[in-house]
Amino acid sequence: MLEPPLPSTALSRDGEATLAAQLAARYAERIEQQLLAPGARLPSVRECARRHTVSPSTVVAAYDQLAAQGLVEARPQRGFFVRGPQAGRRAAARAQPAPSAPRIRPTDAATMIRGMFHGVGTPGPGMGTLPPDWLDLPLLNGAMRRATADDDSALRYGEPAGDLRFRTAFVQRLADVGIGATPAQLLTTMGATHALDIVCRTLTQPGDAVLVDEPGWPIEFARLARLGLRVLPVPRGAQGPDLEVLRTLAQAHRPRLYITVSVLHNPTGAMLSLAAAHQVLKLAESCDFTIVEDDTYAYLAPAHVPRLSALDNLQRSIYLTGFSKILTPNWRVGCIATTPAMADRLIDTKLLGMLSTPTAPERALAVTLEQGSLRRHAERVIVRLEAARHRTQQLAEEAGFRFAAPPQGLFGWVDAGVDTERLTEAMLDRGWLLAPGTLFHATPRPTSLMRVNFATAQNATLWDTLRQVRSEL
Amino acid sequence: MLEPPLPSTALSRDGEATLAAQLAARYAERIEQQLLAPGARLPSVRECARRHTVSPSTVVAAYDQLAAQGLVEARPQRGFFVRGPQAGRRAAARAQPAPSAPRIRPTDAATMIRGMFHGVGTPGPGMGTLPPDWLDLPLLNGAMRRATADDDSALRYGEPAGDLRFRTAFVQRLADVGIGATPAQLLTTMGATHALDIVCRTLTQPGDAVLVDEPGWPIEFARLARLGLRVLPVPRGAQGPDLEVLRTLAQAHRPRLYITVSVLHNPTGAMLSLAAAHQVLKLAESCDFTIVEDDTYAYLAPAHVPRLSALDNLQRSIYLTGFSKILTPNWRVGCIATTPAMADRLIDTKLLGMLSTPTAPERALAVTLEQGSLRRHAERVIVRLEAARHRTQQLAEEAGFRFAAPPQGLFGWVDAGVDTERLTEAMLDRGWLLAPGTLFHATPRPTSLMRVNFATAQNATLWDTLRQVRSEL
Repeated sequence: MLEPPLPSTALSRDGEATLAAQLAARYAERIEQQLLAPGARLPSVRECARRHTVSPSTVVAAYDQLAAQGLVEARPQRGFFVRGPQAGRRAAARAQPAPSAPRIRPTDAATMIRGMFHGVGTPGPGMGTLPPDWLDLPLLNGAMRRATADDDSALRYGEPAGDLRFRTAFVQRLADVGIGATPAQLLTTMGATHALDIVCRTLTQPGDAVLVDEPGWPIEFARLARLGLRVLPVPRGAQGPDLEVLRTLAQAHRPRLYITVSVLHNPTGAMLSLAAAHQVLKLAESCDFTIVEDDTYAYLAPAHVPRLSALDNLQRSIYLTGFSKILTPNWRVGCIATTPAMADRLIDTKLLGMLSTPTAPERALAVTLEQGSLRRHAERVIVRLEAARHRTQQLAEEAGFRFAAPPQGLFGWVDAGVDTERLTEAMLDRGWLLAPGTLFHATPRPTSLMRVNFATAQNATLWDTLRQVRSEL
Repeated sequence: MLEPPLPSTALSRDGEATLAAQLAARYAERIEQQLLAPGARLPSVRECARRHTVSPSTVVAAYDQLAAQGLVEARPQRGFFVRGPQAGRRAAARAQPAPSAPRIRPTDAATMIRGMFHGVGTPGPGMGTLPPDWLDLPLLNGAMRRATADDDSALRYGEPAGDLRFRTAFVQRLADVGIGATPAQLLTTMGATHALDIVCRTLTQPGDAVLVDEPGWPIEFARLARLGLRVLPVPRGAQGPDLEVLRTLAQAHRPRLYITVSVLHNPTGAMLSLAAAHQVLKLAESCDFTIVEDDTYAYLAPAHVPRLSALDNLQRSIYLTGFSKILTPNWRVGCIATTPAMADRLIDTKLLGMLSTPTAPERALAVTLEQGSLRRHAERVIVRLEAARHRTQQLAEEAGFRFAAPPQGLFGWVDAGVDTERLTEAMLDRGWLLAPGTLFHATPRPTSLMRVNFATAQNATLWDTLRQVRSEL
């Protein structure tokens, strides 16, 4: 693999644009000028880092940006390659740093997260959703057609609380997981992330403390930091949070919220035990914080597993969920269940931030709920995921990797025995995108853990490569 | 009109729920118990206010909530009436204050705005959009069908910047209004309100000062206040902002942003003159603030009228717009144009707040842009609106009302000669929803001005009623 030299001017470190963005822009320029031809391989992460005197993670972020712009593509086992002429149209959309642009503060966390988000769409062991071929496009398109036929909702704003037909249908689903609520207790959002954003903007002020699970979801940590909140990580074990740490932090910092995933926690796959749930609710009561229960993975778990919001009847807990991990990540439909009075406050926040949500996806979701097609789809996915989990577990263990938590749901929490950030860099050179454990810590730190998507990791070559790469580190 | 007495317990003033919500809940309960039968008329606003010892504006907010819940309907010239049995299903969605709900602070501003937002969907002179029958449902449904046929975008997250096909098509529209940009300078949002939210969350911190036009859009004032920003109103005249006030405030408070509508300003309909635009840009340069140009009414104006963002080539200005005022308020598609580096920062904020936006509405909009159907629809609307404007102006002037600004675009800024908040209360008893001028002030104050929607005010009975009601005040 030969690479024409990049222009010799050093990357600028004066803060106008992140190093990763500058590096991506240089490669993009060479690709557009055809100095890097379609099919050419980019240098390895370590080689590129050495050449430009930047850290390997900067190169990873730059390559992710190029991939997201459609200029290069990852090929498993081989690395990153310049895409063919069909990339030309996308190339037009490429970002060019403008010399007189407003001053940009370096935002390495955001760059990392954007790279991760892009990576979400790349089938591979680090992926955060089901792969596209596990979803049911005819189901989606059929529901959307049925929902929009003879419908004139496009002519006016949606209801502030969200489509009533969706909310009515969702009441039954909530009952299935043990939560009693009326449509007046629900409001729709643009997915679970937006639901978390609405709750935090309504219930916190900058400077407030917020408890989170650690490991946990990095976009959530970044979102909380952006709101000016103090993020207090609570170690998450197999049965639930470390209750002593939870109590100590709650008493010392008087947090407003505890944001937690009870069911199939990301990234460990752990379930909250009934006993721990009871203790968490007692602490919420005595220390006066609200629990925000993020049930994003609800459809991948048995319905009967305990939710805090079911125990508590939505008094100290606000329940939220979405459909990105089971039906489609594109429609962006989420839902919050709470008391009617709190729903009113949350609707005000939703309204001020974007007015209402589009009706069609909510109504299409109502169709899948009413007809049972979402439930049947979920049952099929659960069976397929169980098989994928067994196969992945077998391959991983044969390759000498250990599970740090019992395999459940979509994600495995795997101990590689070596620093997984280094493992990720080395694997990226071979075209595999991993999700190293450091991503899932509120304050990134070296760890030998990584998150593995069972649906996209049942691949013998992947594990052979991992074993080999690990031995070379 | 007879009304069964409401339960004698007084409304609670301990802050658990707003008075308006409590009042709405009482009426809702009686409607559900059929103590208020379908067809029954609710008491007049003044009568109801007297009976429950609350202010007329509380009654207005309560009635608006009932209307939004589908329990009552406004009938022009007559008042509010209990709806028939078809309202039963919607009644299930009614909010009930829960006794043990988390403590709610009274939020009269939010209640007022939510009422106004609900009012937006009620055809009447106070409406904020084109009425549904001015929109083109076959155009909308056809574009959506064409955009989603043979499309598998539902299987994955949308691009962080928004659908590339939409951004590519929108570049041409921007060129039509004099703004040069590439797709990499654009990001999509959930409508213009969400665009404003993303810009403010990226560029301001709580405590920062922000300049706004006054009169202006009340949801914007409330949104800025919620972000903890100091709102600095600048009087808006026929040619643009009061430049002396703008300069004095900018020098004294060092604001981060000036949020302004250059074209068909809401509520006055005024256009920014070229000379004023030049002065505003010079001030932005010398006082170091960013201009946020909200071009929500772009399609209702001639393409050639000057935009700050066109003069400035998007250096000190961020341009944003949406399609709610021309094509559909339900799809929630908006777009921001800025420098590529700023676009990157704004995309990070969008991502942290909701990940990506749904692809289908953006692609459907691309179809209407590519095929010219949006442009042809806008041309038809402009012709129809001009006729409505002439007729409304004639009726208004015959009834003795005066235009405080030259009639242009969708809204007229009308001087009623009496306090328009009192006029609004009295007209609501007759089933007409007005938009009194006080709504459009950052700090509400009595005014004789009101905003009139030309598309829904070309009604002789309306103006006869207004004349008569005014004479009785």
